[in-house]
Amino acid sequence: MIRTLILLLLAAPLAALAQEDVAAQIIALERAALDRWNQADPQGYLDLYAPDMTYFDPSLDARLDGIEAMQRYYAPLFGAKYPFTQPRYEMLNPSVQHHGEVAILTFNLINYGTFEGQGEAVIARWNSTEVYRLVEGRWMICHSHWSYIKSEVPEGMSL
Amino acid sequence: MIRTLILLLLAAPLAALAQEDVAAQIIALERAALDRWNQADPQGYLDLYAPDMTYFDPSLDARLDGIEAMQRYYAPLFGAKYPFTQPRYEMLNPSVQHHGEVAILTFNLINYGTFEGQGEAVIARWNSTEVYRLVEGRWMICHSHWSYIKSEVPEGMSL
Repeated sequence: MIRTLILLLLAAPLAALAQEDVAAQIIALERAALDRWNQADPQGYLDLYAPDMTYFDPSLDARLDGIEAMQRYYAPLFGAKYPFTQPRYEMLNPSVQHHGEVAILTFNLINYGTFEGQGEAVIARWNSTEVYRLVEGRWMICHSHWSYIKSEVPEGMSL
Repeated sequence: MIRTLILLLLAAPLAALAQEDVAAQIIALERAALDRWNQADPQGYLDLYAPDMTYFDPSLDARLDGIEAMQRYYAPLFGAKYPFTQPRYEMLNPSVQHHGEVAILTFNLINYGTFEGQGEAVIARWNSTEVYRLVEGRWMICHSHWSYIKSEVPEGMSL
């Protein structure tokens, strides 16, 4: 009887703790991949991408599907020379919506770099969606959507 | 023995059928909401949005969180007068990744309208992510991300 009561009292806080734990874990995975990206190393993301990965970003004509497409897409970016130094980022207001084997991480990202003689400047402001799912017990990204905050309608588009 | 064999033979095709069924169901929900949107009726989407909804689009400064924020955001769009007639859309290459209680719908969307004296024109080209989840047995959207295909870096941003 007392044991049941203790179990009941423990259950709710433990569930909340488990959710927080998933959120912290997902955010840490994303930050580690971003840190490597800023060092011109896309392998951090490639290691996180699930085989059935789908992907959008503002420079593409259409969705990319599958890890092989991502490997080809990122290949030229390894060791890329940036026109700035000291890249850093702010991850603003990260949110993790965890439902079963899926966790949806969303955040705004601000990229900064230092330009010679000009000091630090904002390079890009992003809306970021990273949908993680459990693949054999490991959180991997199965969908990624990157877009510019307040982006303009591309030239030539009416309205 | 024979019954077990029949069950085993049935299991794989039934699982595949169930996945197809979810994909068809999700795409039908999205199309119904898009059809209403094109008639200046955002209620189709609002009815699909889960309470814990998160949302990005290119005209926002940051993520919107929660159904109430979405209701306020869409309120001015009810009955909006478009500068064109005969709105229609193409949903290109829809994909549904279904994992447990979550289904990730991604597609490219082309919006068309007819302008007086100019005929039909493309109004916008979108990258679209709609993450659905089961809420008490009903598929609802818990995250939405809309961005322009090949959007430009917003003016004033370096690089």
